[in-house]
Amino acid sequence: MADLFQRIHANFRRQRVMALFGAELKTVQEGLAEIELAYREDLTQQHGYLHAAVTTAIADSACGYAALSRMPEGSDVVSVEFKVNLLSPARGERFVARGEVVRAGRTLVVTRGEVMAWHGEEAQTVLLIQATMMRVTG
Amino acid sequence: MADLFQRIHANFRRQRVMALFGAELKTVQEGLAEIELAYREDLTQQHGYLHAAVTTAIADSACGYAALSRMPEGSDVVSVEFKVNLLSPARGERFVARGEVVRAGRTLVVTRGEVMAWHGEEAQTVLLIQATMMRVTG
Amino acid sequence: MADLFQRIHANFRRQRVMALFGAELKTVQEGLAEIELAYREDLTQQHGYLHAAVTTAIADSACGYAALSRMPEGSDVVSVEFKVNLLSPARGERFVARGEVVRAGRTLVVTRGEVMAWHGEEAQTVLLIQATMMRVTG
Amino acid sequence: MADLFQRIHANFRRQRVMALFGAELKTVQEGLAEIELAYREDLTQQHGYLHAAVTTAIADSACGYAALSRMPEGSDVVSVEFKVNLLSPARGERFVARGEVVRAGRTLVVTRGEVMAWHGEEAQTVLLIQATMMRVTG
Repeated sequence: MADLFQRIHANFRRQRVMALFGAELKTVQEGLAEIELAYREDLTQQHGYLHAAVTTAIADSACGYAALSRMPEGSDVVSVEFKVNLLSPARGERFVARGEVVRAGRTLVVTRGEVMAWHGEEAQTVLLIQATMMRVTG
Repeated sequence: MADLFQRIHANFRRQRVMALFGAELKTVQEGLAEIELAYREDLTQQHGYLHAAVTTAIADSACGYAALSRMPEGSDVVSVEFKVNLLSPARGERFVARGEVVRAGRTLVVTRGEVMAWHGEEAQTVLLIQATMMRVTG
Repeated sequence: MADLFQRIHANFRRQRVMALFGAELKTVQEGLAEIELAYREDLTQQHGYLHAAVTTAIADSACGYAALSRMPEGSDVVSVEFKVNLLSPARGERFVARGEVVRAGRTLVVTRGEVMAWHGEEAQTVLLIQATMMRVTG
Repeated sequence: MADLFQRIHANFRRQRVMALFGAELKTVQEGLAEIELAYREDLTQQHGYLHAAVTTAIADSACGYAALSRMPEGSDVVSVEFKVNLLSPARGERFVARGEVVRAGRTLVVTRGEVMAWHGEEAQTVLLIQATMMRVTG
């Protein structure tokens, strides 16, 4: 399990835009990944809430790493496509994206996920994602 | 027409994440908007290409501003949902997102768009988007 | 509860294409609906499995009726958009689509659902849907 | 070209649900396909317009056959996923779905399409689709 986290984390660290956002990979299990992010003013849209581009970014990545966790070592993963519904403005101090594998084929992996916005002790789902990931090698 | 650009541009400037990405609003016409971005290393994924989060961000915004250009003054726009297909890695020096209105209703506006990656004189479509925008007031 | 089922069922019966498919509304609760269908040869694709058009039809309708169950009496519902992932061929004797409300706004309702294919005692998820429904009146 | 049409048409004829709907394959070119359908009362939704299940079915199939037209002989095609926006009720006497290839990879083919509703001499776009198709063999 430690190995799985380390393998995925090594990939995560190479995504420079995740560092720019201050996003952290928090959890990796077989078929599941979670990425967390703190609110920052330079990540906002016109009303001061977190921009959908940022919640989408961590949702897509969580789905991608959930998929990668089900692939053999040496694999890499790319997003083929995804669809998000934005349920409400991303108000909060902390945002947690979770991605889960629904069906893992040899080449394509279908995933679902969501982003929760935490405001103190209260959480609200702000984004739903349904995404297709593809295994690539080399 | 200058007025339309200025009205949309005022909204664009309040999206802090667009400044973080170095994105610029280039074109606004009735039912169409274009946003441009230069390659930067801190915007990349694990293979050194522009991250899909960034191409998605400018595609979604271009669709949103295309929609806003068809709404009465005083309106604002939010993304209800969008779906992207990532056609190939976002290789290039410069990225241009274009969004266009397909159907404008009173509340909902349906849009399509794409992102072109420019490498010298050559351009390649790297992302397709189909998105639903909603008019909000106040 | 009986009233809720009857109200939704009255709407369901007016969808002529559901009768053509032999689809039946089985369950309605607040925020949830299920539609069932038996395999029939005239509903198949080129390999003899149930056509994705048919599984999509019952998935979209289950989501629509889940949404309608959360709307005031006198409302009707239309699909704004939906996205489906087809996980595997729809092999089976019996197909059950379930739709559930994730977020109900005044005008728009966001839903998720899936279709299970039953082959004897075994079930397999063959389709995932994420859909936006809109309340209409009159 | 006649050969291409015949090869695709042989596949189309094996989709029993297309016969049930009275759908006809009208046009096939490299990277493009069109399917047509006449209004029929048993294909309607609760307001008497053509059901979105039926417009979606011909849109998905048109995209699939557009994709198949770009694949080597002996290939077959399955839909991986699709996303539709329903722009307005499908009012009309005749419905034409067109699918076009945007990017053809070795395994995955990305397509876009729409459905036009014809009412006398007037046409209106009633559905947009963005879909991913996969080549299968055997």
